[in-house]
Amino acid sequence: MEHEILENIKTTDDIKKLNIDKLEMLCSELRDEIISKVSETGGHLASNLGAVELTVALHYVFDSPNEPIIWDVGHQCYSHKILTGRDITGIRTEGGLSGFPKSAESEHDLFVAGHASTSISAALGIAEAKKISKSNDSVVAVVGDGAFSGGMIFEAMNNAGRSKTNLVVVLNDNEMSISPNVGAMAKYLANIRSKEGYFRFKDNLEHMILKVPAIGKGIYSLLRRIKTFFKDMFYSSNTFEHFGFTYLGPVDGHDVEMLIRTLKRAKSIRRPVLVHINTLKGKGYGPAEKNPSKFHGVAPFYKESGELKKKSGDSFSNAFGKILCNLAENDDKICAITAAMTDGTGLRDFSEKFPDRFFDVGIAEEHAMTFAAGLAAGGMKPVFAVYSTFLQRTYDQILHDASIEPKHVVIGIDRAGIVGGDGETHQGIFDVPILTTIPGVTVYSPFNYSELEANIKNALSGKGVQAVRYPRGSEKNVPEKYNKAYGNYDYFEGSSDCLLITYGRLFSEAAFAAEESGASVLKIGKIFPIEHELIEIAKKYKNILFFEESVEFGSIAEHFGNMLKKSGFNGKYEIHCVSGFVPHMSVESAMELHGLDCESMKNAVKEALK
Amino acid sequence: MEHEILENIKTTDDIKKLNIDKLEMLCSELRDEIISKVSETGGHLASNLGAVELTVALHYVFDSPNEPIIWDVGHQCYSHKILTGRDITGIRTEGGLSGFPKSAESEHDLFVAGHASTSISAALGIAEAKKISKSNDSVVAVVGDGAFSGGMIFEAMNNAGRSKTNLVVVLNDNEMSISPNVGAMAKYLANIRSKEGYFRFKDNLEHMILKVPAIGKGIYSLLRRIKTFFKDMFYSSNTFEHFGFTYLGPVDGHDVEMLIRTLKRAKSIRRPVLVHINTLKGKGYGPAEKNPSKFHGVAPFYKESGELKKKSGDSFSNAFGKILCNLAENDDKICAITAAMTDGTGLRDFSEKFPDRFFDVGIAEEHAMTFAAGLAAGGMKPVFAVYSTFLQRTYDQILHDASIEPKHVVIGIDRAGIVGGDGETHQGIFDVPILTTIPGVTVYSPFNYSELEANIKNALSGKGVQAVRYPRGSEKNVPEKYNKAYGNYDYFEGSSDCLLITYGRLFSEAAFAAEESGASVLKIGKIFPIEHELIEIAKKYKNILFFEESVEFGSIAEHFGNMLKKSGFNGKYEIHCVSGFVPHMSVESAMELHGLDCESMKNAVKEALK
Repeated sequence: MEHEILENIKTTDDIKKLNIDKLEMLCSELRDEIISKVSETGGHLASNLGAVELTVALHYVFDSPNEPIIWDVGHQCYSHKILTGRDITGIRTEGGLSGFPKSAESEHDLFVAGHASTSISAALGIAEAKKISKSNDSVVAVVGDGAFSGGMIFEAMNNAGRSKTNLVVVLNDNEMSISPNVGAMAKYLANIRSKEGYFRFKDNLEHMILKVPAIGKGIYSLLRRIKTFFKDMFYSSNTFEHFGFTYLGPVDGHDVEMLIRTLKRAKSIRRPVLVHINTLKGKGYGPAEKNPSKFHGVAPFYKESGELKKKSGDSFSNAFGKILCNLAENDDKICAITAAMTDGTGLRDFSEKFPDRFFDVGIAEEHAMTFAAGLAAGGMKPVFAVYSTFLQRTYDQILHDASIEPKHVVIGIDRAGIVGGDGETHQGIFDVPILTTIPGVTVYSPFNYSELEANIKNALSGKGVQAVRYPRGSEKNVPEKYNKAYGNYDYFEGSSDCLLITYGRLFSEAAFAAEESGASVLKIGKIFPIEHELIEIAKKYKNILFFEESVEFGSIAEHFGNMLKKSGFNGKYEIHCVSGFVPHMSVESAMELHGLDCESMKNAVKEALK
Repeated sequence: MEHEILENIKTTDDIKKLNIDKLEMLCSELRDEIISKVSETGGHLASNLGAVELTVALHYVFDSPNEPIIWDVGHQCYSHKILTGRDITGIRTEGGLSGFPKSAESEHDLFVAGHASTSISAALGIAEAKKISKSNDSVVAVVGDGAFSGGMIFEAMNNAGRSKTNLVVVLNDNEMSISPNVGAMAKYLANIRSKEGYFRFKDNLEHMILKVPAIGKGIYSLLRRIKTFFKDMFYSSNTFEHFGFTYLGPVDGHDVEMLIRTLKRAKSIRRPVLVHINTLKGKGYGPAEKNPSKFHGVAPFYKESGELKKKSGDSFSNAFGKILCNLAENDDKICAITAAMTDGTGLRDFSEKFPDRFFDVGIAEEHAMTFAAGLAAGGMKPVFAVYSTFLQRTYDQILHDASIEPKHVVIGIDRAGIVGGDGETHQGIFDVPILTTIPGVTVYSPFNYSELEANIKNALSGKGVQAVRYPRGSEKNVPEKYNKAYGNYDYFEGSSDCLLITYGRLFSEAAFAAEESGASVLKIGKIFPIEHELIEIAKKYKNILFFEESVEFGSIAEHFGNMLKKSGFNGKYEIHCVSGFVPHMSVESAMELHGLDCESMKNAVKEALK
């Protein structure tokens, strides 16, 4: 398929010159381009296909980058990237574009986003700055319905509604965020959606009446009052209006013409407006329409069939889910909590087997943590499964609600360590530093599934906050000699005066490196608090090398180093950690770059023993 | 005044035996007791006086601790403490009660609370646990209207409304949180309040009709339909009902009889209910009714006049406000942001002088941080003033929204370090550990006001996130020799081979200790990132002692120690930090307890040089 319209879009101004027919063709070409390219590299497909018409209409009506578009979560921005002159070939792979908005790529991306519910706060800040600078430019935030379960959205709405800014919030309602969403807000939106057509009717009517010269305005005024009455009848309960927004919608999010008319009106209102549009995740690609959850973040697939090119194998997430199900069979106090990640965290089976003890709270990590503390206070054994990067949101809840007066909450930290294609916004390299600042928190980091099981059992029989962190993907191999049932720590004595200290997935790299270099290995399973026995073992060495998938400040290595120092250790130690934010690239590439792969370890041993 | 009713309350069951007259007398006695005791020790007065009748009614209707009452923020719990057998004499001082709920004190306190907006999450957790355990007990959360601007409340409401639990949320609406609150929610509540009386009318009507035998129920059913119609007319826009709650209110929160009737009905409904009550902050004490903000958290005062016993002196907060005002006079890009702490953070003058550049976002720290990043993206120079303890809520926003793609945001971190009477929930001992995990963040910690000014200027001309942290209270003295204009660091050479490294308020203790002990002092002003020059100075010593108002894991001392180690340092160092959560006691006592006062420092020097 030729992309004749798309090929002629050199700047976003070119979009504004197209007529409706051409705009519709452009949408079709964008859709084709996205399906083709994502089928090759993998990426976020369903959400991007749902936002094609919206993106075209936004660039038609608003003047980006002066009127910036802030994408919530950011994984629906592929059309935006293409229309602003970027080639999505190889997206999310090293050297290709980021899968999320990124300022470094384009002036049209003013804000990075990979976590949900931040867009209105950011957009309101920009809008207030424009107001202070006496600019009349609009600022647009595009938010999915899923993100509306996040507290920040409400904090922002509460402030935005009363602001005197030209803020346009587009609620992209696809009846489903990552997992089908939950809660009162979802139900409420469903209720509004059922009144679809009202806006179109109202819009047409007004249009018609205003065309009648002279008397038009009088009738319009009368009708306005009638309309207000009817509107109150139909929409008497519009929460967005309570927040001070002018509400427009719901409109068909795949009707470019209607979108343009609505957005133009929103722009003309010159106060905070919420435009509610209905879209279909995966729109225009059969397999994705049928199974939007599978095609949310998808691996490379055959475009014709939608089949994945490689079967997805086992994973820590699935192992976690199975282990928890087995334990819950025999312990009716075990509860599982997820923040809109039932599938991602491997909890699908749990949710079906134990619906009364399963809680999907929506994208609401802060609530999830304190809710878990509440379950614990009520005598349950709550297990909150959450990606490391999203755990960052719950620092205060872990500290204030679950640790000052310890509540026995187990946290299953998924995607701990380097994550690959999602890049900076999704790396799991901060959980160890922040958890270890909180008095009383215990942290485990298993190497394989059987250790994961042992860790979860320990965590469930422990006290206070107990975290078990495990990486994305599947368990790895080690040479025979290192393959055993792991305890809180395991010590493998080598032949040289060099000790490698590590945990989790990196143990595989370390074991192979030790095998070849003769170094010893201290593998920690319970990584925090650091047991004194570990210091005693380490002290026997003159050369200690730490390898850790974490930033350095606040790492286990740093804590361990200080404990060594206190114990009178006078040898050398070196810390090999992740430095800075890690952009999108394969896990393997990132490991090499940060000196955490087997080769780097071997070289480090050589250097240390020189 | 004798407290004859109060003296006979031995258990909460005794409350349930009182008639309305006696209950009203009990309220009066409670009020008297609170005013007397708080006038002696200081404490939260206005909020406690507002919640007297509510507390009595709650204990009359619900069966605590089986039906637990979860207090949001917690600073309205004094009546609850008294009624559950605790003596509030000396509250918030060492050996006295905590000013917040505390499990260790009583089985009636199931959840600690010092941060806002957590109660519904916690209560819902307990309520779900009760449901799983087949218990019919109710769980009560009491939330002020101020806390309703916090996102967690919405996350919790979104989940609670659809739950099948016996959850009763009491919205204690006093038209004012710590600062008069802001935003759409406040306006919305004001709108509901204006319809006061409806519930009373409805209630009386129903009561009357149901008394008529036989036909009563038929009429009731008809009237119910009529009522629903009227209710929709009046309350057509009840957000709480959209969230799935049954809404009761608004009712007079100082009418015990009415409160009891309403709470009884709420309890009988057996699904999530929101009871909206109107109260007056400071109720029953003239000076506090007139000036609830002054009497929110108040120092000891003369009961008769309401005058403070000691004039409040100067403070870092006030100095911060003045400095920012002066700078903003000459730089129209400087904006100030607070999360409901205009007075607490010293921003009152700024708010009046520069209303267009001042933003009180309500209790919404997460939004505040990302909003600040938005202002920065729009070309402004935002300064977010926030207490250290509440900054904990913004970890992910600092990292994800302001640092992955650096936004130039200045954070004024007030109440950094040990805070005194507020205890565990309010200590500022975690900000350094969490900020230093985030790549690109700069942290300053001034010793006195002139250094504060220099730090703010540096922060405003820096890049990325720039934090300036300063303690509660006023600047301190140092011996003449140490009194100079401080730079990024200052080195005071002594006569012995011992170096004290410290920053902020502790510099005073260190300088006096050094004066007497002959130790050298390295005072850091820009505490992070740690400059290499500092390592070079420190390396000259064999004995290094760090003193820091922070937990140890993630402290500057830990980072510094590792850098020393990397540079080949082979001397000794010792870290003196805060260990664990710090309960309520004077700052001086806490300093001694954790070995951070001058005496402890001198002893540490002696020990080190042995």
